[in-house]
Amino acid sequence: MKEIKVFAPASIANLSCGYDILGVCLDKIGDEITVRKTKKKGITIKKVSGQKLSTDISINVAGVSATALLNESKVDCGFEIEIHKGIKPGSGIGSSAASSAGSVFAINKLIGEPYSNKELIKFAMQGEMAASGSKHADNVAAVLLGGFTFVRSSVENDYFKLNTPIEIAFTVIHPKIELKTKDSRAVIKDKVSIKNMIEQSANLGAFISGLYTEDYDLIRRSVKDVVIEPLRSVLIPKFEEIKSASINSGALSCGISGSGPSVFAICKGITTANKVGEAMTKVYRNLNLEYDIHISCVNDKGIRILNYE
Amino acid sequence: MKEIKVFAPASIANLSCGYDILGVCLDKIGDEITVRKTKKKGITIKKVSGQKLSTDISINVAGVSATALLNESKVDCGFEIEIHKGIKPGSGIGSSAASSAGSVFAINKLIGEPYSNKELIKFAMQGEMAASGSKHADNVAAVLLGGFTFVRSSVENDYFKLNTPIEIAFTVIHPKIELKTKDSRAVIKDKVSIKNMIEQSANLGAFISGLYTEDYDLIRRSVKDVVIEPLRSVLIPKFEEIKSASINSGALSCGISGSGPSVFAICKGITTANKVGEAMTKVYRNLNLEYDIHISCVNDKGIRILNYE
Repeated sequence: MKEIKVFAPASIANLSCGYDILGVCLDKIGDEITVRKTKKKGITIKKVSGQKLSTDISINVAGVSATALLNESKVDCGFEIEIHKGIKPGSGIGSSAASSAGSVFAINKLIGEPYSNKELIKFAMQGEMAASGSKHADNVAAVLLGGFTFVRSSVENDYFKLNTPIEIAFTVIHPKIELKTKDSRAVIKDKVSIKNMIEQSANLGAFISGLYTEDYDLIRRSVKDVVIEPLRSVLIPKFEEIKSASINSGALSCGISGSGPSVFAICKGITTANKVGEAMTKVYRNLNLEYDIHISCVNDKGIRILNYE
Repeated sequence: MKEIKVFAPASIANLSCGYDILGVCLDKIGDEITVRKTKKKGITIKKVSGQKLSTDISINVAGVSATALLNESKVDCGFEIEIHKGIKPGSGIGSSAASSAGSVFAINKLIGEPYSNKELIKFAMQGEMAASGSKHADNVAAVLLGGFTFVRSSVENDYFKLNTPIEIAFTVIHPKIELKTKDSRAVIKDKVSIKNMIEQSANLGAFISGLYTEDYDLIRRSVKDVVIEPLRSVLIPKFEEIKSASINSGALSCGISGSGPSVFAICKGITTANKVGEAMTKVYRNLNLEYDIHISCVNDKGIRILNYE
């Protein structure tokens, strides 16, 4: 294999109750990344299309993660990367995670798969570090493992997949304002009341239980955020209206996707997800605010190969 | 049915990672509670044996919870309660929960079961309130539902059972010092750092996942407490030695049972639990400190009827 093209999907981190812990992999929307072996050692980013991004490998997250992999694995060739961004940076649906994970997934295939997808998370996390200043694994774990994923400890490289109830679908609306992960992290307070910690973690535990028992009503009750959402939602235009419109249209729950500004609704069934999408768009249409909307099932496989030669 | 005798088991709350959220029901050790119908309305506590406790129904937790049930259910008779305490008050293995749950479980049976066991939790919680000044449901949920139990919200009466991996066994050592739940709650700080909140809730979620997937190694990694244990463990003689001895003898993990002073070890297999028991007792024997020790499988049924007429 000398060249490979992969589809690196978008993802939703946090899912209201699992700040820096939970992630879920989406379908359809994502980056397409082509990597080919070169005689010249090292990483080159040949081209970025779809979005304006640096091709400097110390800035572009796909270069940062690829360099981290190469520094550890000592291969005898180099790699040339082409990125077609399907996800807008700063949208809150794992744009940097898709590119960070995509390049290392592709390189790993080209060098005979010395690493498991789980082992690639640590390299992809270097890309996240470059993008946001924090080493969070929630999005990259979702992209690399697929389905709903859990980060027990990124220090201990302890990540795993959860169960995916078959009918879960997501609606994501992205108001076209740019919100940097860095800025969005800055509003978070250092301390949490013990009362809120208990409420938040009870919801997290209940959500995990709901995924395993496929109890949609428990999922509805537990996708809540009393810690982060009250602080971050003010950065998102008409957040409360979007949330009410979603729930009134049948969503199980609704919250901020990752660090925002995208807002997700978790739904039972794709039909409901579509209805929720219509209700969400109405809110922004009335405001003349530009937005993107995505309806997606859970992508249980994660990142995938499109073609290779 | 005019008289019933029930066995109300001991329980472990918190389980390190789930403060005020998690509970597990134990086997063998517990209170025996006999309740009989009387023509005279209201509740009388006729006798308490095994431990010295008040028979005043506004003080004895079995009386408090029974009164709460009677206030709601309007029955045409009264009830006389006899309690044989098998669990020492202030031991940290749900002494008040066993009596609170025991009396309402028994009365519910005598009046034709208008309530489910889950619905009885709110009455039993009144007993907990009387005992400790806080309405925590973690122990009573474990006693009434059996197995590992989860409190999502006691305000919303949202409790459920988790899966019980078949080989899980517990060792509990009770150093004979009395530690009131009230005092033990007083050392808890009002605020938690967001870093600790994330670590603690990641462990809680991982533990829940480990219960469903019966992944003993994940259980081992996740039964940890970075929030409460550092503050409370100073109230327990030789806590760190007990913990090291347990883990060195094969326990998956070890922590404070409820609000202490009992210490639990969670083990894979009853043989390991016995070994851990020997290691724990050695620590206290060398100190000439009095203790009780209990080895128990998980009691998946919870409270049970001993006999009735």
